[in-house]
Amino acid sequence: MTKWVYSFGGEKTDGRADMKNLIGGKGANLAEMANMGLPVPPGFTITTEVCTYFYANDRQYPKELEQQVNEALQSIERFQGKKFGDPKDPLLMSVRSGARISMPGMMDTVLNLGLNDETVKGLAETSGDERFAYDSYRRFVQMYGDVVLGVEHHDFEEILDAHKRENGISLDVDVTADGWKEVVKQYKALVQKETGEPFPDDPMTQLWGGIGAVFKSWMVPRAVTYRKIHEIPGDWGTAVNVQTMVYGNMGETSATGVAFTRDPSTGENYFYGEYLINAQGEDVVAGIRTPQALTEIGKERDGSTLPSMEVTMPEIFKQLDDVRHKLEKHFREIQDLEFTVERGKLYLLQTRTGKRTAAATLKIVSDMVKEGLINEEEAVLRVDPAQLDHLLHPRLDPNAKKDVIAKGLNASPGAACGAVYFSADEAEAQAGAGKAVILCRTETSPEDIHGMHAAKGILTSRGGMTSHAAVVARGMGKPCVAGAGAISMDYKQKVMRVGDKVIKEGETITLDGSTGEVMLGEVPTLNPELSGDFAEIMAWADKRRRMRVRANAETPTDARQALEFGAEGIGLCRTEHMFFDPARIQAVREMIFASDEAGRRKALAKLLPEQRGDFAQLFEIMSGLPVTIRLLDPPLHEFLPHEDKDIENFAKIAGVTTEQVRRRLGELHEFNPMLGHRGCRLGITYPEIYEMQAQAIFEGAIEAQKKTGKTVVPEVMIPLVVSKKELKMLKDRVIAMAEKVFAEKGTTLEYSVGTMIEIPRAALCADQIAEEAEFFSFGTNDLTQTGLGMSRDDAAVFLGEYVEKGIFEKDPFSSLDQEGVGQLVEIACERGRKTKADIKLGICGEHGGDPSSIHFCEKVGLSYVSCSPFRVPIARLAAAQAAIKAGTAGQAKKKAA
Amino acid sequence: MTKWVYSFGGEKTDGRADMKNLIGGKGANLAEMANMGLPVPPGFTITTEVCTYFYANDRQYPKELEQQVNEALQSIERFQGKKFGDPKDPLLMSVRSGARISMPGMMDTVLNLGLNDETVKGLAETSGDERFAYDSYRRFVQMYGDVVLGVEHHDFEEILDAHKRENGISLDVDVTADGWKEVVKQYKALVQKETGEPFPDDPMTQLWGGIGAVFKSWMVPRAVTYRKIHEIPGDWGTAVNVQTMVYGNMGETSATGVAFTRDPSTGENYFYGEYLINAQGEDVVAGIRTPQALTEIGKERDGSTLPSMEVTMPEIFKQLDDVRHKLEKHFREIQDLEFTVERGKLYLLQTRTGKRTAAATLKIVSDMVKEGLINEEEAVLRVDPAQLDHLLHPRLDPNAKKDVIAKGLNASPGAACGAVYFSADEAEAQAGAGKAVILCRTETSPEDIHGMHAAKGILTSRGGMTSHAAVVARGMGKPCVAGAGAISMDYKQKVMRVGDKVIKEGETITLDGSTGEVMLGEVPTLNPELSGDFAEIMAWADKRRRMRVRANAETPTDARQALEFGAEGIGLCRTEHMFFDPARIQAVREMIFASDEAGRRKALAKLLPEQRGDFAQLFEIMSGLPVTIRLLDPPLHEFLPHEDKDIENFAKIAGVTTEQVRRRLGELHEFNPMLGHRGCRLGITYPEIYEMQAQAIFEGAIEAQKKTGKTVVPEVMIPLVVSKKELKMLKDRVIAMAEKVFAEKGTTLEYSVGTMIEIPRAALCADQIAEEAEFFSFGTNDLTQTGLGMSRDDAAVFLGEYVEKGIFEKDPFSSLDQEGVGQLVEIACERGRKTKADIKLGICGEHGGDPSSIHFCEKVGLSYVSCSPFRVPIARLAAAQAAIKAGTAGQAKKKAA
Repeated sequence: MTKWVYSFGGEKTDGRADMKNLIGGKGANLAEMANMGLPVPPGFTITTEVCTYFYANDRQYPKELEQQVNEALQSIERFQGKKFGDPKDPLLMSVRSGARISMPGMMDTVLNLGLNDETVKGLAETSGDERFAYDSYRRFVQMYGDVVLGVEHHDFEEILDAHKRENGISLDVDVTADGWKEVVKQYKALVQKETGEPFPDDPMTQLWGGIGAVFKSWMVPRAVTYRKIHEIPGDWGTAVNVQTMVYGNMGETSATGVAFTRDPSTGENYFYGEYLINAQGEDVVAGIRTPQALTEIGKERDGSTLPSMEVTMPEIFKQLDDVRHKLEKHFREIQDLEFTVERGKLYLLQTRTGKRTAAATLKIVSDMVKEGLINEEEAVLRVDPAQLDHLLHPRLDPNAKKDVIAKGLNASPGAACGAVYFSADEAEAQAGAGKAVILCRTETSPEDIHGMHAAKGILTSRGGMTSHAAVVARGMGKPCVAGAGAISMDYKQKVMRVGDKVIKEGETITLDGSTGEVMLGEVPTLNPELSGDFAEIMAWADKRRRMRVRANAETPTDARQALEFGAEGIGLCRTEHMFFDPARIQAVREMIFASDEAGRRKALAKLLPEQRGDFAQLFEIMSGLPVTIRLLDPPLHEFLPHEDKDIENFAKIAGVTTEQVRRRLGELHEFNPMLGHRGCRLGITYPEIYEMQAQAIFEGAIEAQKKTGKTVVPEVMIPLVVSKKELKMLKDRVIAMAEKVFAEKGTTLEYSVGTMIEIPRAALCADQIAEEAEFFSFGTNDLTQTGLGMSRDDAAVFLGEYVEKGIFEKDPFSSLDQEGVGQLVEIACERGRKTKADIKLGICGEHGGDPSSIHFCEKVGLSYVSCSPFRVPIARLAAAQAAIKAGTAGQAKKKAA
Repeated sequence: MTKWVYSFGGEKTDGRADMKNLIGGKGANLAEMANMGLPVPPGFTITTEVCTYFYANDRQYPKELEQQVNEALQSIERFQGKKFGDPKDPLLMSVRSGARISMPGMMDTVLNLGLNDETVKGLAETSGDERFAYDSYRRFVQMYGDVVLGVEHHDFEEILDAHKRENGISLDVDVTADGWKEVVKQYKALVQKETGEPFPDDPMTQLWGGIGAVFKSWMVPRAVTYRKIHEIPGDWGTAVNVQTMVYGNMGETSATGVAFTRDPSTGENYFYGEYLINAQGEDVVAGIRTPQALTEIGKERDGSTLPSMEVTMPEIFKQLDDVRHKLEKHFREIQDLEFTVERGKLYLLQTRTGKRTAAATLKIVSDMVKEGLINEEEAVLRVDPAQLDHLLHPRLDPNAKKDVIAKGLNASPGAACGAVYFSADEAEAQAGAGKAVILCRTETSPEDIHGMHAAKGILTSRGGMTSHAAVVARGMGKPCVAGAGAISMDYKQKVMRVGDKVIKEGETITLDGSTGEVMLGEVPTLNPELSGDFAEIMAWADKRRRMRVRANAETPTDARQALEFGAEGIGLCRTEHMFFDPARIQAVREMIFASDEAGRRKALAKLLPEQRGDFAQLFEIMSGLPVTIRLLDPPLHEFLPHEDKDIENFAKIAGVTTEQVRRRLGELHEFNPMLGHRGCRLGITYPEIYEMQAQAIFEGAIEAQKKTGKTVVPEVMIPLVVSKKELKMLKDRVIAMAEKVFAEKGTTLEYSVGTMIEIPRAALCADQIAEEAEFFSFGTNDLTQTGLGMSRDDAAVFLGEYVEKGIFEKDPFSSLDQEGVGQLVEIACERGRKTKADIKLGICGEHGGDPSSIHFCEKVGLSYVSCSPFRVPIARLAAAQAAIKAGTAGQAKKKAA
């Protein structure tokens, strides 16, 4: 016979913590506590299988269920020495849902089942408190009427409000026992009117009503939608927990409270929590009475003057503290628990893993390793890499007041505050004058880089998580709110508008890049504090990860920041960013305007020493570590002026007419620049550009090698390749240039030439491409754009709905679409290795800093991931977790990776 | 011992026609003719293996070669009764290259080897013509000096010119024997001066010099480049043909000529060709003397007054006509042959398959089937589908004079002539007034459709083979020259400029869409004449093809045209084209401007009856044949006005401010519209649009079914799908709408719902998508754009170079990139079938009309191809050829495909 009902806390306990699938999370932990000998009010759990059966059998219960419930209830009656429905001394029960994981939308709780006009008298007598009894009774009728019988909550509230009005009282506590009696009568009349049936007085009817309500709530639309979005199978079902009621509001020897086994904000190892004497659970959170600290240390931390439980109930506190130690030792995790003291007796109502801040997590796991509770590997697995992100940036003071005027995407974490400016030039000028500046643009382009550098934070009204603003801001580690669609920028008037509000140039706003909030005025921020725990845990992680972690960086600042965060090389140096410097852009534009190769070469000759200097400096900073340099990637029109003023300026300096500039702009215009004349296509049509870059790389490397005395190994990376022939042609030129430079300088150095894999065709033809490539670096930004046929700059308008409706689990530009785009990565890895078994494989798209994508990279066996400097610690941690889970922890990282 | 030398035409013949790989095309056919007993001047072929050996062994010949050449030469000497280098009666030889296939860049011919100061006297004596002998000698020294010894050709010409000046003569024919003696002396002095060596007098030295020159020319850069581009392996090598000289210029009983076994222009079965008495081969083509027709019928056709060979040399003509019949019977193909008559004896110097016009091909293969020379299957294989294209459109009168002012891409074939207009509205107005109009635009957009419809031809200055203009023009079967970059359109001045020329509105130009030429003024055109041969051959093809052929069409005109050309259904009805009608665009725009769903539904309600009418009409025309309707695909901004005037107009009608229109335009602007908010993404975010379309489809289908009494099977196609969930959501709505309409109308009909596979992710996840799709239609235009990361509208600027440099074999937008994008198609077919074995698979991209892509479609087993109406015959033929080659010819075509 199938066992449908699992008892706990009474005569016997059938369940265990590892039975969450069968009896739900709450039920499993209640059973576990009972097994540990902790005081849990006796009860039983109806399994999730009953729920599945219920829906598979036209909403019928298995026939054995009634008997098993009866037996479990009788066992409780025996244990408690009370009877359910006994008018003298009634046993009262609660009913709660309990799925495998906590799930919104479902029925939560019905308390005080078993009360009716008769048993309430027994409760009044045994408790010696008639008001308490009738208060409990009216709470029950209201709760049951609402969640089980579907009578509107506010209809009950109206009755209560009328009663208070008529009796001239304003607070519930002033309602008398007789008052509650009257209210109960009216409540029941309401139920009769609304449902056409009298309120059920029979305790067993009440119990089955409660059980049925939980099961039915499994299929309410909100729960169904939630499961759909989170891909929770409908046949998991929910369990139902039926448990003896205990009361913290039975006088001065009763109390109720919640506690964490450590401080969830700081992680400090002391007993953290709040309690109230003579109160119910809901009173602790309702805010009518001020909860008191559990411990003296907690009282001190809170700056409270109210006495701690340690002082008011020393005996009970000792028991509770004992429970705390037992729970931590048992679960080896910070616990969040609920307890009630009924007339001097402690009961535990719930325990679960405690939610805590990132800083607390670091402190806790570090402490727990020292305490011997967990080992280093477990510690590494315990830290959520996404949470780590918050530690690496300034954040808003959580206690500050905020006037939120708009919300965009949380494009780059951290908080920033400054005066708004609407052009990069103005932002730069004001920042130069010492002002804190927020750069506000409809969207940003590479021309805005200097303004972004100068700004404290960036706000755009358009663009997604991988728009130019978002990507560059993350790279710089600057807070960015992107795509705040409610804001419209008016460059002419130098204002931005949101609703009726107009924010003028120079006014102050605050951005929270971690939430996407835009706030009027200054909101105080707190600077990040990286604790010793952080370094310790990162060291444990580094010991375990297999993959190397590099950074995407091109400026000396970024490169140094990357080293500080533990980067082991540069995986992507975007050379185009070096061209936007005002001192150089003119030469770049001259090249674009040249009518022939000779003219282009002349302009490029001006760029050569600058570019060589860039590389020499980068090689020097990264001294001895590998540096991957990507040759020019964006379409040429990105370097041209677009605004009238800029066009006039440029024409004047270049000695051409604005007409000519506009014509060239027209010629270079592209319908879909993402799919246009860029990347190695420029190298094929204008070979002199890549030649100049190759020359600068090799000359710069020789210079740096001489200066530092360390081996410099440049990795030259060709972008946007789709075929072997393309790569071969360009590689041949790079090699020829290397040989030319080596001959001239009378020295040589090691170098390699590889390619981005960022176009589906390249992934599919990776076997051929690998014949010419010494390494592949997956450019998953573009691979996502082409693989999904979605422009990252345009997708924001529908991507939200796509994620909401569950078409994509996550934004595929933030977290790799493993099912689709991931296949291309896998195919390329497999085919690349078929041709060249030891080909070096890395990733340099935005996904290189995303934990779930990093797990994927470990799975397919990449050599390294490369990400924004500010995400390097996250990547280090995620790579370690991935290696531990994949069983590759501690495998030697290849030197060259 | 390896046989390096193959003799022919003398004592024995070693080679055969099927030995082209070993002895080259020319050598193989010479041997074949000798084997047939035809009079071929004796000679021998040095094999391609010698060439390979030569390059594999540091430019040394195999050691046995010299002896084998000597033996072959001696055999010729015996046969001819002459000796090579005999001063009395010298045997003279020619040396020619001969690779497997004809290849530019290589050395062609050296004639008259064996002449020197001694042997020339013998030639003078035996020929009885001293001038002939010294003329031959000087030709030899010049040719050998140029191609073997590398002395500049024009240096020889200068000597000859000086001689003529000094002697006061202007024509070569007036140079005397003594004159040639003097010229030869100076030629030899030139060679001595340039090469530092005397001109080789020894005949064997001359012979080996000639042979070596052929082998060396295999590796000259032009030949290497040509092979690279055409992917001809370098180790194929070339053969060398050494052949006895014969002379057509030995007096009135000698002659030379070229002939085709049938008329290569019309295909008529008569002996077509030209000859000249007492002349050399080069004289026939040099244009100094007018060649005469071979036959009387040819003379009549040419309107010539000169006597035919049939009359002047009846005996020889009889022999030649006999050869003609033998060759056709033997090769079963029209032959192009060269002959020489030396003193009354006929010699054949070459035969090969004759090049002919498309019309001639049809006539010839049809005749040959009737003559029993070939069977129907061979006939089908003989017609080049690409050539067929020329037959389906008007073409320029080949005899007309042309003033070509620019050249663009041959984007849609056929010729058209008309007055230029620069806006669609103006073009429509003028066409309405009865004018022939050419629409000239920088590029076209869907807003120009009515102007394109009204125009005779379309000219754009920007865009590639699959730009909007090109695709739409091909669909309409209208001539189009696209991307004529030299032309700049000036809409304001209403002129176009090319160089210094200014063409004003209303002036006449002519377009040749088959060559891309743009001509000033009117050039007369000829209308296509589809012969009975065409219908006959198409019937033979239809019997053999396995795949169905459908058309991409949405207008009644196109649908009727498609039926006329034999389409078996519509594979792609692009519903957006139906929205651009001026009567509807307003409602479309109202929908776009609506602020909520209710507003959108109100606007859509106006479109519903129109759209229903469209579909009803289409179903009626296609009566009983399958029609695939693609739901709305382009981004909404395509429907909005863009030019100032249009914006003002629209704002006025819609009762909004131009400011509002511009703001909405700004909101809808996309950086990469190709990768933006379009296709089913619109269906997900605005479900009401697809709902209206589904309603129109089902209501229209029921209407048409009632009217025609034939079963209508609509196929509803969802574009741009990337995941199963996406498709499922939209399919559920289509089904719901079908059921609603059926319930309302009290009737039902069969229908299916499928998807485009046009994004790499869709191809990779085809197994999942097939769970929801009843058919896949490969949208290879977008699949190419995303698979290669190339925008078809932007690729023109680099794609030319990509094809030229051999990175792509062909323009991947015209002919499917089988190696890359083809993999995605294969993967999708395979995975789709894994889920649903009988899933219907088709293609509706531009490639559906491209023969090489159609072969690919046959290989992967698609059910049908769909293409522009005007390409339907091409597709029918190509599908038949593919089936024959794949061995699937005549396999039952599925009824529903």
